[in-house]
Amino acid sequence: MKPDVFLTGAAMTPFARHDDQSMQDLTQSAALGALRDAGVALDEIDAMYAANVYGGMVLGQVLMRDLGITGPALYNVENACASGATAVHLACQALRLGLYETVLVWGVEQLTKLGGGTIPLQRNDYKTDRYARQGMTLPTVYAMRGMRYLHERNEGPELLAQIAVKNRRHGARNPLAQQRKPVTVEEVLSSRPVAEPLTLLQCCPSLVDGAAAVVLTTKPLADGRPKVRILGSAVQSGHIEAGCDNILDAEITARTARLAYEQAGLGPEDVDVVELHDAFTIAELLYYEALGLARPGEAGDLLRRGETQLGGRVPVNPSGGLLAKGHPLGATGVAQMVEIAWQLQERAEGRQVEGARIGLTQCTGGGIAGVDHAASSVHILGV
Amino acid sequence: MKPDVFLTGAAMTPFARHDDQSMQDLTQSAALGALRDAGVALDEIDAMYAANVYGGMVLGQVLMRDLGITGPALYNVENACASGATAVHLACQALRLGLYETVLVWGVEQLTKLGGGTIPLQRNDYKTDRYARQGMTLPTVYAMRGMRYLHERNEGPELLAQIAVKNRRHGARNPLAQQRKPVTVEEVLSSRPVAEPLTLLQCCPSLVDGAAAVVLTTKPLADGRPKVRILGSAVQSGHIEAGCDNILDAEITARTARLAYEQAGLGPEDVDVVELHDAFTIAELLYYEALGLARPGEAGDLLRRGETQLGGRVPVNPSGGLLAKGHPLGATGVAQMVEIAWQLQERAEGRQVEGARIGLTQCTGGGIAGVDHAASSVHILGV
Repeated sequence: MKPDVFLTGAAMTPFARHDDQSMQDLTQSAALGALRDAGVALDEIDAMYAANVYGGMVLGQVLMRDLGITGPALYNVENACASGATAVHLACQALRLGLYETVLVWGVEQLTKLGGGTIPLQRNDYKTDRYARQGMTLPTVYAMRGMRYLHERNEGPELLAQIAVKNRRHGARNPLAQQRKPVTVEEVLSSRPVAEPLTLLQCCPSLVDGAAAVVLTTKPLADGRPKVRILGSAVQSGHIEAGCDNILDAEITARTARLAYEQAGLGPEDVDVVELHDAFTIAELLYYEALGLARPGEAGDLLRRGETQLGGRVPVNPSGGLLAKGHPLGATGVAQMVEIAWQLQERAEGRQVEGARIGLTQCTGGGIAGVDHAASSVHILGV
Repeated sequence: MKPDVFLTGAAMTPFARHDDQSMQDLTQSAALGALRDAGVALDEIDAMYAANVYGGMVLGQVLMRDLGITGPALYNVENACASGATAVHLACQALRLGLYETVLVWGVEQLTKLGGGTIPLQRNDYKTDRYARQGMTLPTVYAMRGMRYLHERNEGPELLAQIAVKNRRHGARNPLAQQRKPVTVEEVLSSRPVAEPLTLLQCCPSLVDGAAAVVLTTKPLADGRPKVRILGSAVQSGHIEAGCDNILDAEITARTARLAYEQAGLGPEDVDVVELHDAFTIAELLYYEALGLARPGEAGDLLRRGETQLGGRVPVNPSGGLLAKGHPLGATGVAQMVEIAWQLQERAEGRQVEGARIGLTQCTGGGIAGVDHAASSVHILGV
């Protein structure tokens, strides 16, 4: 009998430009916040999982040194945009095995000091990448998917813009989001072009810093709060899309979601709230279908009916998503967990999804030229 | 009842300057070698664990793309010198949980293209490191330990040199080692000074490339070969030494070893062959005591009695160790497993430890300025 895994502590820093704080400051703030939230002391932590992309060697250990919990096992994990979710996934494995009772998982990234998430394009490893050399970077890959989507579904660019409008409207209610200004469809469409049909406001901000942390345990305190349980946790690798035959087939995400639903014994119809990986507006539409929230071909209708906005049947990205919050790579997957935990515990002030009992998080990301090497993760949480 | 974990496939590339090969070539060569060795097909792999320090985002997925096993979960793991061993450790967890039946673990590093293992010192993150700024890099930290050791134990520098002589003598028998020239005590002591008392031949080569891979499974084939079982697997974090009070106390290593011995139900007296982390000669002496191979204060005697050389009671680093093989960071921990598997299966031609039944691997490493943030891993394998 494998023990249940509970998420008992959740915290994150604002996602913002933090010129005055080091990666250590950000991490410690999130980590101590999660521990306090869980009512867990430093010396109760049996292991740590650290998610980060650009920080450097043994970063987790470096960041923890001043907290004085340098003894337990610490795993530095990287899986591009899915780094944070992968760290949570590995933690769940060890907890279910009974290897640890209580662990701390965090993600952190400080992209402003690097000049933003695309600066590594100038690094040698990407200069020699066959796809990056051809200009196949993530914005262009998603732009092609957007173009094809609009063509095949006979839609106009307003549909994409409506994703940005919805998520930025949500983000305006989240004091931790980087961009909290509501925008109109017209503003989205007239913002600076990035790669047709994607405009600037349809791309998540990557000039951002932040950290997020959760405490996971098989021995939750009886503190009277709703107990958030990890019901499903899946990680897969593969291609961002299935192949040239159909660049709209978010195969890796659908496959990962299937595994998570199976573990949870639940289906898409059971989900009350979702935090998904809207790095670009088109991604959210594709993931509606990959996650089973909409039937094939019906993502646009789901959005237009308002079902995925706050107050709708299954609000998607009530936090504002990556589009409003910003996307500090290593922190993102953990921050999604934080938001869902808050939603399930009715602590998402100003953006609460009423009566939410089941939440889902999803991250799918690849390298800078992420066409054919990606990681995907789906988690299902419930109270 | 948790299933046993077996190591059924082991392979590595030569550790060398591989100008003509990419990281992908190296990885695929090791990975395919391990799969062939295990008699396992690509589509039988349920998950992959990739260890690397300097390669970049979703490196594991990038390196696997041409092999066509891009579907299963893939975890990119980093823990400095213990990266490869940490990947093995995480794989063992998932296998014991029953999450996967058969997994592939590999480590790879291509340091020659970076200009060697110390080049990152020029990177900004290390420029701002408080210890690196003071000159406290790994060679100087180990040099201080060496100096203190010689002082406290009333030994001369010949003792350190003898470690280099032994391991390089072993390495001369290993066609996969980078430096295969036997050396004398005089040659070691008269080689270029690095940080007193360490001379160049007492430091492991870091201008080296290489990959190593193992197949781990809970369902081994009945192929008639001795079945190598993972009996203990521990990872800890902490300080390379216990503190300023006693820089000779390899506390993190002793603590990690204790956990691994406990799991295996074995003690140091049961171990027949060891691959340990001799990044510098002094390290091997300290680890003799931390691993319990010698009683406190008796490491020098153990070495002088010849007990740790090939033909002795418990040969240490029959592969040549890091000193002769070279130290491609991510690959090192996996390569130690490869050597021990070959020893236990009596396949270590030219350097076989006769009748070896129990083997131990150990890695302890930190950042470039690794004084106070380190990762350690100990594995015990048996047939």
